[in-house]
Amino acid sequence: MASDSKTGLQLRSLIKKSGELEISLVEVPTPEPADDEIVVRVEATPINPSDLGLLVGAADMTTARAAGSKASPVITAKVPEAAMRAMAARLDESMPVGNEGAGVVIRTGSSEAAKALMGKTVAMIGGAMYAQYRTIKARDVLVLPEGASAADGASCFVNPLTALGMTETMRREGHKALVHTAAASNLGQMLNKICLKDGIPLVNIVRNQEQADILHKIGAKHVVDSKSPGFMDELTKALIETGATIAFDAIGGGRLAGQILTAMEAAINKTATTYSRYGSNVHKQVYVYGSLDPGPIELSRNFGMAWGVGGWLLFPFLMKIGAADGARLRQRVMAELKTTFASHYGKVISLQEALDLANIAVYAKRSTGEKFLINPNKGG
Amino acid sequence: MASDSKTGLQLRSLIKKSGELEISLVEVPTPEPADDEIVVRVEATPINPSDLGLLVGAADMTTARAAGSKASPVITAKVPEAAMRAMAARLDESMPVGNEGAGVVIRTGSSEAAKALMGKTVAMIGGAMYAQYRTIKARDVLVLPEGASAADGASCFVNPLTALGMTETMRREGHKALVHTAAASNLGQMLNKICLKDGIPLVNIVRNQEQADILHKIGAKHVVDSKSPGFMDELTKALIETGATIAFDAIGGGRLAGQILTAMEAAINKTATTYSRYGSNVHKQVYVYGSLDPGPIELSRNFGMAWGVGGWLLFPFLMKIGAADGARLRQRVMAELKTTFASHYGKVISLQEALDLANIAVYAKRSTGEKFLINPNKGG
Repeated sequence: MASDSKTGLQLRSLIKKSGELEISLVEVPTPEPADDEIVVRVEATPINPSDLGLLVGAADMTTARAAGSKASPVITAKVPEAAMRAMAARLDESMPVGNEGAGVVIRTGSSEAAKALMGKTVAMIGGAMYAQYRTIKARDVLVLPEGASAADGASCFVNPLTALGMTETMRREGHKALVHTAAASNLGQMLNKICLKDGIPLVNIVRNQEQADILHKIGAKHVVDSKSPGFMDELTKALIETGATIAFDAIGGGRLAGQILTAMEAAINKTATTYSRYGSNVHKQVYVYGSLDPGPIELSRNFGMAWGVGGWLLFPFLMKIGAADGARLRQRVMAELKTTFASHYGKVISLQEALDLANIAVYAKRSTGEKFLINPNKGG
Repeated sequence: MASDSKTGLQLRSLIKKSGELEISLVEVPTPEPADDEIVVRVEATPINPSDLGLLVGAADMTTARAAGSKASPVITAKVPEAAMRAMAARLDESMPVGNEGAGVVIRTGSSEAAKALMGKTVAMIGGAMYAQYRTIKARDVLVLPEGASAADGASCFVNPLTALGMTETMRREGHKALVHTAAASNLGQMLNKICLKDGIPLVNIVRNQEQADILHKIGAKHVVDSKSPGFMDELTKALIETGATIAFDAIGGGRLAGQILTAMEAAINKTATTYSRYGSNVHKQVYVYGSLDPGPIELSRNFGMAWGVGGWLLFPFLMKIGAADGARLRQRVMAELKTTFASHYGKVISLQEALDLANIAVYAKRSTGEKFLINPNKGG
């Protein structure tokens, strides 16, 4: 079946009006490429936190059950009543999943640009990557550098561009150092490499000693454990040393965003000589780009009036900076694909294995531990 | 004493390291005017919510006690232990109070600009207005138009410029309508008059029927009561009708800021046709400019990723827009002083009466009801 490539397996996520999530594999025809399109045999596509929103939605994965056959497994899980409202727009719609991936071009349209890609290993972004074949516009892929495998290029959009987007946002908004939470993640490690290379002071916030060790090992200078009893003092000290007044927060829910603003204000006021009951005039910003904790954000305002908290998302950011600056960032990713932007995976799994309850229990935790890579053509 | 004007009474607020707030009146020498300065006999100075932060600080005014004499009263109150950290920068420092006021120029420096102001009724901003005399730079006052009294001009900076700052911010950040909370306040009524005059759709959020009635009476079209059981639906409906995607919130603490973002997103999505798990791309902004509820802000994120919540303060805003635009706003205030920007006061009190427990119980509530005007030379 895979050898023919006219059809291929595609992972689908469906949330039914009844409140049930269903993840399954369906056999779909591979769309014939238009003139400016190519067909890619997908060989590597990561499970990012940003994929889980679509893959499992608001379902409670502790209720997950397996059915179907080994070749065609079906996973079901319950979506809590309270979360169904947020799912309204996708109900009863079977949705393909997978933001980014890489693979080999096996068929092309008639345009020169498309034909030039035949046989090349390319990276892609655009959804529906958890599939054996993906038909896509030639201009939407990047040819990987000589010697780079599909696995090397599988994660070359979301995490690298997000990390670069953070330092870029920092500069554009007039800050000189930054704070990052859930900092031992794959993305966080990339950000450390970028900051070390570019000489940007970075304060890493982690949640345990193991994560701190990971970062120290790759050369991180400022690592603060939010579970430490002296957290606020340690964070303030790191902020005084770095002067960071912008943070990117992957966690979202809880008190952390507010604590960061409080510590920033305390660090700024260490040098203040007069009382202002409105606090410092230095703008302090936290961008929430993830939802590791989907609960409410709680902000206890003891950080003056010059502050902001807001959402941050890669694609609107790329639209804002425009095509030329976007291309500059992508070129840097390609140039440093096997160094700064190298991703490490704990496990390479097939599409069927992505629907294995034991694997789901690991990747659906959204922890910053093991990262999974799907090879949809593994054993196919 | 008042007739001599070489000295005068000044209201002072002191928070002691022991955790006690002390409000008192002290006799202070009136500084002789430098060449470019004038001495104003203060005849009207309002108690704004923005003055209470300095006047009572974090003290619990339900613990207030009166001492001293009728001519020289002293008020004391306890500052809760937990709030003392935020007061650190002002401890044991006796501070003058009063952001803005108006009065008659009774003495001037030798410069032409200063001499030209002799005898004129002027409005001022700059602190220490709760005093019988205020020495100030000639360039920091505005001459009130013919026929305007000190009371007419007492509140011509903070509220009028804040209200104009809101519509100005709305335009500059690309929104076409706005939301205001605690909307029946003096400021909120001004904002309604501005929006009606300028054709800007405004959604007013109030906390009871009485406040709604006040606004309907002055012609407000969209008034929503946050205590109504149908609040979220009513708010969403008003947001659909107006297209408002920016809000100015005087309350701060609690769930309201998040509810506004949620309703904005719901209003935007009424016209959306496809599912995006990141929500709409339309940026939704809430600026928190007050603290009627000093508790934590709680944001339950069901409004996508295109959102921001942040502090907003008049003076940084004026600095940002620059002198020319600031002058344009001030000119509009003077031109419409007795119409759009007219303030109404429930009570005119002396400095001594400002230290009366019964009066404090009313103005320290920070409710949007009765507004007090101090005449420091009343009966003086």
